[in-house]
Amino acid sequence: MKFKVKAYVMNSSEQTILLADEDSLAIGVKENDRVSVTGYRSAIAVVTHAKDIVPRGTVIMTKDLADRIGVGNDGEVDIKYAHAPDSVRFIRKKMDGERLEKEQIEAIVNDILDNRLSKIEVSAWLTALYINGMDIDEIADFTMAMANTGDIVKFSRSPVFDFHSLGGVPGNKITPIVVSIVAAAGFMIPKTSSRAISSACGTSDFVETFCDVELESSKLKAISEDVGGVFSWGGSMNLAPVDDLVIDIEHPLGINPRAQMLASIMSKKVAMGSTHLLVDIPMGRDTKVPTLESAKAYARDLMDLGDRIGMHVECAITYADQPIGTAVGPILEAKECISILEGDKHPASVIEKAVECAGIILEMGGIPNGAVRAKEILDSGEAYKKFMEIVVAQNGRPDLKSSDLVPGEFTQDIIASSSGYVHSIRNKNVVLIAKTAGSPSDKGAGLKIFKKKGQRVEQGDVLMTIYAESEAKLKRAVEMAISNNPFDIEGMLLKRVAGIKSI
Amino acid sequence: MKFKVKAYVMNSSEQTILLADEDSLAIGVKENDRVSVTGYRSAIAVVTHAKDIVPRGTVIMTKDLADRIGVGNDGEVDIKYAHAPDSVRFIRKKMDGERLEKEQIEAIVNDILDNRLSKIEVSAWLTALYINGMDIDEIADFTMAMANTGDIVKFSRSPVFDFHSLGGVPGNKITPIVVSIVAAAGFMIPKTSSRAISSACGTSDFVETFCDVELESSKLKAISEDVGGVFSWGGSMNLAPVDDLVIDIEHPLGINPRAQMLASIMSKKVAMGSTHLLVDIPMGRDTKVPTLESAKAYARDLMDLGDRIGMHVECAITYADQPIGTAVGPILEAKECISILEGDKHPASVIEKAVECAGIILEMGGIPNGAVRAKEILDSGEAYKKFMEIVVAQNGRPDLKSSDLVPGEFTQDIIASSSGYVHSIRNKNVVLIAKTAGSPSDKGAGLKIFKKKGQRVEQGDVLMTIYAESEAKLKRAVEMAISNNPFDIEGMLLKRVAGIKSI
Repeated sequence: MKFKVKAYVMNSSEQTILLADEDSLAIGVKENDRVSVTGYRSAIAVVTHAKDIVPRGTVIMTKDLADRIGVGNDGEVDIKYAHAPDSVRFIRKKMDGERLEKEQIEAIVNDILDNRLSKIEVSAWLTALYINGMDIDEIADFTMAMANTGDIVKFSRSPVFDFHSLGGVPGNKITPIVVSIVAAAGFMIPKTSSRAISSACGTSDFVETFCDVELESSKLKAISEDVGGVFSWGGSMNLAPVDDLVIDIEHPLGINPRAQMLASIMSKKVAMGSTHLLVDIPMGRDTKVPTLESAKAYARDLMDLGDRIGMHVECAITYADQPIGTAVGPILEAKECISILEGDKHPASVIEKAVECAGIILEMGGIPNGAVRAKEILDSGEAYKKFMEIVVAQNGRPDLKSSDLVPGEFTQDIIASSSGYVHSIRNKNVVLIAKTAGSPSDKGAGLKIFKKKGQRVEQGDVLMTIYAESEAKLKRAVEMAISNNPFDIEGMLLKRVAGIKSI
Repeated sequence: MKFKVKAYVMNSSEQTILLADEDSLAIGVKENDRVSVTGYRSAIAVVTHAKDIVPRGTVIMTKDLADRIGVGNDGEVDIKYAHAPDSVRFIRKKMDGERLEKEQIEAIVNDILDNRLSKIEVSAWLTALYINGMDIDEIADFTMAMANTGDIVKFSRSPVFDFHSLGGVPGNKITPIVVSIVAAAGFMIPKTSSRAISSACGTSDFVETFCDVELESSKLKAISEDVGGVFSWGGSMNLAPVDDLVIDIEHPLGINPRAQMLASIMSKKVAMGSTHLLVDIPMGRDTKVPTLESAKAYARDLMDLGDRIGMHVECAITYADQPIGTAVGPILEAKECISILEGDKHPASVIEKAVECAGIILEMGGIPNGAVRAKEILDSGEAYKKFMEIVVAQNGRPDLKSSDLVPGEFTQDIIASSSGYVHSIRNKNVVLIAKTAGSPSDKGAGLKIFKKKGQRVEQGDVLMTIYAESEAKLKRAVEMAISNNPFDIEGMLLKRVAGIKSI
C-alpha cells in the first residue's frame, strides 16, 4: 500500500512508524508488527497505531529512517507486512530451553546489530538467556559472533596482554598503574576502558582529565606497538558494537545474564586481539559478585571460555567491601593515581591492588615473582617514566603533575557525630553521593574519604569531603550523604552479659 | 533539571521522551531509563537519547504526554530520574522461578495498565511467564487482578451463562445460534465477542454486518435482562483493559503463556459477572491446541481455575481440522449463520456444533438431554424468533433476511486440476486467502468452500469461490490461493504391495 511521508526528527535504536488504525488494518498489521518500508531503498520498521492523529494514507517516520530509505517529506513509500526474521524462532527456541547452534546465535546477534529485532524481542531474548542460560560452548560461539559484529585489531607484536575489571567498586583507579608497570617490563598491553555506566567514574572518565582517550584504531595500534601500552576509551573503537544495543535493554531490566556478561567482556578482548588476559573480580556487598562462591564460579567460567576461544585467561578475586583508595570522581581519582606513580606511598590499598594485578600479568609473561618485580618497577620510577610516555603519546602535557589537577571549588566536610570504629563503608552510597555531586560529567566533582574500615574515629573528625563544581550540586550531594550515610560506625563496646548462660 | 518542551504528535502505549545526550548524562539517566516529567502534573516516561538532534535544555515529547502533564509547546518541565516501580522486582522474582503473592501480581498488572512498565519490562514479564509459568492459585490471583483493572458488570438476574471459543478455526459462526437457543430456553447469556486479531473474521466482524455490536454497558445489561441475550463486541466495554496492552507485546513474540491465556479469557468472564461458562476448545492442526492431550490439559486448567474463582466451567473439545461450515468472511458468514436460524439444514457441521454447545449450556441450567432440546428450539423457529428480538434490540432491521446480505461483487472460482478425495483443508491457508481478499475490513470479502474433507472431487469441480470488493484484492487473493493451496487432494488409490512381507 502506498503512503505519503511525514518525517519527524528522532533517533532511536528501534525504528517506529505511525499509521492510521484503518491503514494498519488494511495492510493487516497490528501494533508492534514489523513492516518493510520501501522508498528508494527498503528498511524494516515497527508499527505503532496513531489513533485519530495520522490521516489515512500518511505515514509518520523518523528523519533517520526517511534518510535511510532515500525519501523526503511528502515523498511516497510502499509499506508491507514483513515476516519476523528467523532469529525470532531461535529466540523462542531458547525460551523453550533448547541449545542453540552457532549459526542461530550468529543470526540473533546480527539481527540485533542491524535493528531487525525490536526492543520487545531483544528483551525476550535476554530474559530467556537469564532464565535458561547457555552452556560454555554456546557462550564461545556467542562471544565470537559478538566480536565479529565489529573491527578486529591485529598487532604486529605478540603476545597481547590485557586486563579487565568486572567493576562495581568505587575508586578503582589502578588501570594506568597496572598498564605502566606491565609496559615498563617490556610487554605490550593495549588497554581499552569504559566510561561510567552506573558507577561514579569509569577509567576513561578520569584518564581524560589528563590526556586524550578517544584514540583511533590506527593510533592505538601505533602507540601500543611503540610505547607498549595505552589507556584508551573502548567506545572510540568499533569493538563488538552489538553490545551497546544489548546493554540498553539489559539496563532497565536490571539483569545481566551470565552468558551475556561473559560474551560481552570476552568479545571485546577477542576484537582487541588479546592473547593473555587477567580479569579482576571485585567481590563484596554491592558489587556484581557478592560472595566468594560466585566469584569462583565467574573465574571458572572465564577460564573455561578462554580455553574454548584460545585465550590464556587468569583471574584475581579482589576485596571490594569498601572503595579502593580514598578518592572518587574524575579529577580526584586522577590525582591519586598519578601521585602514586610519582612516588607517593599512599593509599596502600591502591598500590597493593595495582602491584598484585601487574604481578600476575608479569608472571603470565614468564617473569617469576611478578608482584615483587612489579613493586620494583613502580618504586624505581620506571613505571612513572612509562606512564608519562603514554600520556604524551595520547596528547597529554609532558610536564603533567598530580598537583596541577584541581578538583571542584565547592567543598563540604562531613563530620563524625559520634566516636567509634568504622564498621563498614557502603560502596552504593559512596557512588550515589559522588554522582549527586556531578560525577562523572563534572570532572571536579566527587569525594575524598579519610576514614576507612576498621579505623578509629573521634567525634568531630572529618569522615569525608565532598567536592562539586556548583553550590547547588554540593548542597544536594550533602543532603544525599546525610540520607544515605555510607559510614557505619560502631562503639565496638561488647555488651556485658551476666555469668549465667541460658540453655 | 528544567527543560523547555517541544511536543510532537504521537500516540503510543509507551511514553518516550527525547533528550540531548549531555542532558541525559547530567540527570544520570541512560537509554530506556524511566524519568518523572513534571509540568502542572507529573507523569512517567522512558528516555531515548537523541544524538545531535535535540538541543540541550529541550525535551521532545508526545502531545499526549504534554497534555497529560498540562504543558504546551515551549512550556517548562522538570525531569528527574525515577526509580523502577516495585513491580520490576516482582518480574525479576518470576524470572528467578519464584511464586508471586497476590499483591505482587496486582502490582504488575496495575503497572502495565498505567504504563508504568516499559515494553522491555512487559516483554521480560511475558517471557518469564512463558518459561517459568504460574501455579493455578497464582493464575486465579492473576485473573482477579486483571478483571479488577476494568468495569465489573452486575446483573439483576442469575445465573449468568457465558460461552467462549478458544478460536483458531475459520468459519466458526455458531455464536449467534448458541446465544439464540440458550436465550430462547429462558436463560440469560450476555455474550461478548471479539473482532479478528490474527483470524480472518471474528464474531463481531460478521455480526456487525446486520446489527450494532458496540453496546454500552447499560444497554448490554438492559437487553440481556429483558431479551435474555446479546451479541456484543467486548471491546466496547471496559473489560480487563490491561489485556489489550499485553496482547500488543505477546503478538510480535508469537507466544501466549498458559497463565496469560487463561487469565485473559477468565478475567473477562469475571468482569461480565458470568456464573456458568462453556468453553469450546477447537482442536486441530493450526489451532492453538493441536492435540487431544493439550486440549484436555487446557480443559483441566480452565475447570480448576473456575473452581478457584467460584465459576462453574465446562469444556467442549471440538473438531477443528478444517473450517466450520462453508463460508469465511463477514457477510458470507452472516448469511450462513442467519440462513440456519431461518431453517436451512445446511451446512450440517455448523448446526451440529451450535446444537451441541447450546445443549451443554442448557444442561448446566438443569435441562436434561440438552442437545435434543437445543435442536427442538432451533427446528421449531423459537431460536430464530429470539435471534430477531436480539437483532432488533441491537438496532438491526426487523425484516432482516439472509438473502439481503450481498458479498463482494468481484468473484473467482477455484477449480480442481485433478480428481480425487479431499484429504485435508489447511485452516491457515484459508485464513490467508480470506485476509488477502480484504476480510475482515472489507465486509464483502471472503470465500465459500464447496468441497470438505473426505469428499470426492472431479477434475474441473469448483473447490471454492473467492469474493472481494475490488479487482486488485481479488487478483491478489487468487494468487495467494495458488501459492498457498488449502486443499490437499489425493487419489486415495492405495499402493499395491507384492504378497511378500518383510520381517
